[in-house]
Amino acid sequence: MRIHCDKTELQKCVNDVVKAVPVKSPVYYLEGIKIQAKDNVLTLYGSDGTLSIKCTMQADVAEPGEVVLTARILSELLAKFDAEEIALYTEGNNAVIECGSSRATLCFVSAEQYPAFPEYIRENMKLLLARQFVSMVNQTVFATSVSEDKPILTGILLECEDSRMRMVALDGYRLAIREEMLTGDSAFRDVVVPAKSMREVAHIIPDDDTPVYVYASEKMVAVVCDNVEIVTRVLQGDYVKYRNILPTEHATRVIVSRQALHGSLERASILARQSKTNLVNLRIEKDLMTITSDSEVGKVREEIGIRLTGKNLSIAFNARYLLDVLKEVEDEEIVMDFNTSISPCVIHPIKGESYFYLVLPVKTNTVS
Amino acid sequence: MRIHCDKTELQKCVNDVVKAVPVKSPVYYLEGIKIQAKDNVLTLYGSDGTLSIKCTMQADVAEPGEVVLTARILSELLAKFDAEEIALYTEGNNAVIECGSSRATLCFVSAEQYPAFPEYIRENMKLLLARQFVSMVNQTVFATSVSEDKPILTGILLECEDSRMRMVALDGYRLAIREEMLTGDSAFRDVVVPAKSMREVAHIIPDDDTPVYVYASEKMVAVVCDNVEIVTRVLQGDYVKYRNILPTEHATRVIVSRQALHGSLERASILARQSKTNLVNLRIEKDLMTITSDSEVGKVREEIGIRLTGKNLSIAFNARYLLDVLKEVEDEEIVMDFNTSISPCVIHPIKGESYFYLVLPVKTNTVS
Repeated sequence: MRIHCDKTELQKCVNDVVKAVPVKSPVYYLEGIKIQAKDNVLTLYGSDGTLSIKCTMQADVAEPGEVVLTARILSELLAKFDAEEIALYTEGNNAVIECGSSRATLCFVSAEQYPAFPEYIRENMKLLLARQFVSMVNQTVFATSVSEDKPILTGILLECEDSRMRMVALDGYRLAIREEMLTGDSAFRDVVVPAKSMREVAHIIPDDDTPVYVYASEKMVAVVCDNVEIVTRVLQGDYVKYRNILPTEHATRVIVSRQALHGSLERASILARQSKTNLVNLRIEKDLMTITSDSEVGKVREEIGIRLTGKNLSIAFNARYLLDVLKEVEDEEIVMDFNTSISPCVIHPIKGESYFYLVLPVKTNTVS
Repeated sequence: MRIHCDKTELQKCVNDVVKAVPVKSPVYYLEGIKIQAKDNVLTLYGSDGTLSIKCTMQADVAEPGEVVLTARILSELLAKFDAEEIALYTEGNNAVIECGSSRATLCFVSAEQYPAFPEYIRENMKLLLARQFVSMVNQTVFATSVSEDKPILTGILLECEDSRMRMVALDGYRLAIREEMLTGDSAFRDVVVPAKSMREVAHIIPDDDTPVYVYASEKMVAVVCDNVEIVTRVLQGDYVKYRNILPTEHATRVIVSRQALHGSLERASILARQSKTNLVNLRIEKDLMTITSDSEVGKVREEIGIRLTGKNLSIAFNARYLLDVLKEVEDEEIVMDFNTSISPCVIHPIKGESYFYLVLPVKTNTVS
């Protein structure tokens, strides 16, 4: 193998595929990136068994071949090289990388042992914009479960209905649903994708209008964007029938500035998190929401102007469950719908049905 | 106590004094900041027993008094408040802080138990600019010892001779000396200041032309800059007679670009640090320095153009000991003086004698 290529482009590809490569693996070559040179194209592969990433770029291939190089070292070297052109060639059992007056020689392992990139069926495709995909992931992934008690809840449900794609996440305390209208084949299999894979996809694809193709099959989902293909295994099992738990009415509706609520909850939670429950109380009365928190070392009281329709209410939450969603929503004002102090609160935008967040309150003795 | 003051100014003062406050202490009030209000001045105090910081600011004091408040919570609240004016008053056993529509109530402990701010003698003063002090600390503190084997080496020696101030640090492997010309009383006691205290001073004082007054006595050093007074205990014991180990001649002198050397060493150390010794080899020959590193997974070779006077040389170092100094020096080119492959290397600027760094080589079998 002998190639010349652009350093910055190689660096970008390496940084993309390295996201699938485990930092430590008992199998040495799994800490590596497979680099394949053929027909003036360089293809890089990374995989941890669940997530596999493939990235292609143009290169001047004088001699085709393939090698597996330690991912972290390759990535660190590329970040520190100070010239713009890379020469990469094999010499016995070594791969030599030259850049400017630097020359690194890395042992490589045979690419034959490296896991094959998963074959996926290019059917059941859905097409959307990269920034839509990123936003859908960011607004749901925090609500996935971190406990392995119900493994299926550690993933995001990816569901399609006609021209809509929906991502759903829930962990037993809250539920996030995000929808987008899109084009593509009408058929699409509902799948549950590991949260970690979704986070990596959202990091790799750009936050812009680049088209993203999503393919789903029984065992895997593929996301294709520009020169990158990301394939992830899906979680097996039935997802929770979440539609049953969506409230259909409300007794109290509050419209509130997202930023004001976020700031108040942040201050209240400075004291709330001194105790394990991280509890904040919301008292909703007329045009005022009063947020309080209490701990051994002190307490906070916050007042925010609101627009209320319906009944007054007192209700308590784990501050984090509210902060998580307020961080990811971009609307200036949000709607909060309540029924009683022991039934869920629903947060959604004033307009449209693209986002829906449900959070369970905490039962306390002090809340009436 | 009852005061009104500017939020941003209070925040700055709290962030300064909090640097002396331990994150966790078995004695609750030591995790606190003492706030004293008197004669329209607010004075804040923080201390961990070794380092004590005092900061003053203007305030509208309606009722004088003093309280001790939990430092971290106060600091977090101030960072999150979104209005510009603070009201702070006591109410029974609580201190109430109001800012905009936020109201925090914090338990406070009596200020009587709080450690008294150390009295220091305002004699033996030296005057320099804040940025000079910051630069002196940054260019020496990394060479202090982190081991408690010889506690005196965990500090920086502060030494004055006529109109010079000198900071010296050494850890058995390297020695850094930084000098500045300055004004002040001719008398000054040599003292050894804990590295941690020096780091905090360098963080607190601005990196500009604000005058800094330094007072040294047998048991403490005080640094006064603007509205901040920082007093630290000094380490007891005799410092190493470092003058004896300064080489007076050299057989090889290299002039090299600091940035090029830094870049090459960074790349070489990516592989060097795969093995514990973190070893880089320097081969100096004619107008070329070749830097190599070697490990199980691969090796790096770097070439840098140099100006050489004297003999060719091969010598090996712990890469970190060279990188540490190259990060802190600002000169475009530096001088490296050598004698043999087993005697120290001295790094200094081309012009002037303000900085001097000595580093011991590592003896290897491969270096001739």
